[in-house]
Amino acid sequence: MLRKPKILDRRIVAQSRLFRVEEVDLEFANGARRTFERVPGGTDSVMIVPMLDAETVLLIREYGAGSDRYELGLPKGVVEAGEDPLVAADREIQEEIGYGARELQMIKRVSLVPGYIQHHSLIVLARDLYPKSLPGDEPEPIEVVPWRLDAIDELLAREDFNEARSVAALFIALRVMGREP
Amino acid sequence: MLRKPKILDRRIVAQSRLFRVEEVDLEFANGARRTFERVPGGTDSVMIVPMLDAETVLLIREYGAGSDRYELGLPKGVVEAGEDPLVAADREIQEEIGYGARELQMIKRVSLVPGYIQHHSLIVLARDLYPKSLPGDEPEPIEVVPWRLDAIDELLAREDFNEARSVAALFIALRVMGREP
Repeated sequence: MLRKPKILDRRIVAQSRLFRVEEVDLEFANGARRTFERVPGGTDSVMIVPMLDAETVLLIREYGAGSDRYELGLPKGVVEAGEDPLVAADREIQEEIGYGARELQMIKRVSLVPGYIQHHSLIVLARDLYPKSLPGDEPEPIEVVPWRLDAIDELLAREDFNEARSVAALFIALRVMGREP
Repeated sequence: MLRKPKILDRRIVAQSRLFRVEEVDLEFANGARRTFERVPGGTDSVMIVPMLDAETVLLIREYGAGSDRYELGLPKGVVEAGEDPLVAADREIQEEIGYGARELQMIKRVSLVPGYIQHHSLIVLARDLYPKSLPGDEPEPIEVVPWRLDAIDELLAREDFNEARSVAALFIALRVMGREP
């Protein structure tokens, strides 16, 4: 069994509105010491795999400020404090794709950059959709892009479908649905 | 065709040894204005899917400072300035798992958090391995964990195999190898 490194000291070294960076002094089980930077996380976010029917997933296209380009991916959003993640997932798809879901299933909790960032995201499979819209806070309308699962190789080949979390969520959902693409 | 938002202004709002956060004022095509925070990226990193044989991938277990726990995942590392990413991939597996690869193939470029972080990672499939070690700079020896591909559901069910990038890389590699798990 691995014994976790002991945290000897930690201090905040940079802070903005969204990001807080802390420096952590660690002592590993073998005595080795290292100082790492990390971004402590708040609550989990959700990413949703919304199935319009057994063959079609609903993707979205929106601008990513980090990558500075339009990205194809799955709908996602924050879980408000105290909110049930499945309720958050249902709210996000109403805001982003104009559907609610009668069936919501949490299928995996993933990390994004576990070496540096504490944040995790809950992957939710949404089925039995019905039209229902909520206003979102997006600066421009989000484009909804239906994609057939039998064209997954064409999707993976696209440069603008590249978010590791979207790729992972889609494949995990396929396995949970017992459907090899 | 979507017209990318115009960047009206940008300024650094936080900086540490590893992270630089900038605030960006954007004007979208419809005139809507937003201020976002983003972490501009440097060079790409690599993540490697090292196949010991047709049935076995080599995973590693190491401490993640971001998540503050031991994580199971795929070997990864930085591409040095001017370095060929495939050379970097071969170096990283020699450092982390004690194998070099005679066959290295780039199979996808993924983003990690495209909404906020510019950084991308290149997924490299490594085959035809042979024992070869290079010293790494890890604080403690990395544990190498061979995993059979026919036990992928057991892997996905593990809480400590949760990095979205590792999940995505593994599934993409399976498709490239023409092998449904």
